[in-house]
Amino acid sequence: MDAERTTIVVQSGDYDKLYSALIIANGSLAMGMEVSLYFTFWGLQRLTQRGLERGPLSKMHFFGLGKWMVKRRMARAKVAPLERLLQDFKELGGRMLACEMPMAIMGIAKADPCQDLIDDYGAVGSYIKDARQSTVTLFI
Amino acid sequence: MDAERTTIVVQSGDYDKLYSALIIANGSLAMGMEVSLYFTFWGLQRLTQRGLERGPLSKMHFFGLGKWMVKRRMARAKVAPLERLLQDFKELGGRMLACEMPMAIMGIAKADPCQDLIDDYGAVGSYIKDARQSTVTLFI
Amino acid sequence: MDAERTTIVVQSGDYDKLYSALIIANGSLAMGMEVSLYFTFWGLQRLTQRGLERGPLSKMHFFGLGKWMVKRRMARAKVAPLERLLQDFKELGGRMLACEMPMAIMGIAKADPCQDLIDDYGAVGSYIKDARQSTVTLFI
Repeated sequence: MDAERTTIVVQSGDYDKLYSALIIANGSLAMGMEVSLYFTFWGLQRLTQRGLERGPLSKMHFFGLGKWMVKRRMARAKVAPLERLLQDFKELGGRMLACEMPMAIMGIAKADPCQDLIDDYGAVGSYIKDARQSTVTLFI
Repeated sequence: MDAERTTIVVQSGDYDKLYSALIIANGSLAMGMEVSLYFTFWGLQRLTQRGLERGPLSKMHFFGLGKWMVKRRMARAKVAPLERLLQDFKELGGRMLACEMPMAIMGIAKADPCQDLIDDYGAVGSYIKDARQSTVTLFI
Repeated sequence: MDAERTTIVVQSGDYDKLYSALIIANGSLAMGMEVSLYFTFWGLQRLTQRGLERGPLSKMHFFGLGKWMVKRRMARAKVAPLERLLQDFKELGGRMLACEMPMAIMGIAKADPCQDLIDDYGAVGSYIKDARQSTVTLFI
């Protein structure tokens, strides 16, 4: 029997939403499920153009705190940074896919940094195929 | 046996989110699934009051580009505009539903433009009925 | 046989999104399903720190109307306020969970007001367990 699957569209580039997407993805992997993350639009832009931690802080100091304070609180609460969560995701065997159409609109080339993180480029057909075989489907 | 189903709540009026909702919806239809889109709040407002393309550009030039540039890139990348995706959705047999409660709050009458696109008006009961029979459920 | 289940992550603190989450949750309960709501980040902040109705109006007058107008329209359309929807949710037997990690980052203590609404504190493991047994999974 095939393993159960979680399939998530990651359209948002917000720090807290990327965090939740990766936490749910890694939690699924840890419980023996397979996971596909479809990065598109803002999520894809964040992934390929600026890196997860290097982006502007608009969403990072999302609690009205400064960057320093957030980082300190995250360290004290032993919260893993996004880069680390992404690394764990890859090591646990998760699949990352990039949607081709938004790449064309946004001018993201396949040679952009972080392209080595991406397992495959796909259109909606491969998403539907994954999603209909999934126990958990989310749009974040 | 019934066909598999995709059920999506379209609450956002953001250009890129409407785009993803319609791409997933049309992809599902193309693969033989049935699809119900429940328009509510901002998605419903966008649909009924301003039209999909005529709205303000706040979210349309979402990549820091001007409207002209976005339109040119979309044409070059052969990206279908929202109006066309919506037309395809209807022709492929997708169902569009409008949620009644937000209409009352927002003052949207059933005689508003685009009402001919809407197959039915519904409350949460019909959504739950569709969603529990669906393979893919998303909130966008 | 177990009852069918709806599991929703409530990450947003936007008035209209909390409204939709609770409407879908209560509709599921009314149709005999079990429901788990996982409050995290902004949804959790709204729940624990300011109360559902007392928050700033940025999202409450979301139709360009003033607070007074919105309240009048909601009353006229017989729309239940969020506090009432939440009360119904609890009375119908819904479960509310708070995610521990964001609480640590945001400095929300377990003694904050509204903690009596929360049935349990959990991490991603309990979410995945609920979600994989659910007919409907949403991220709002």
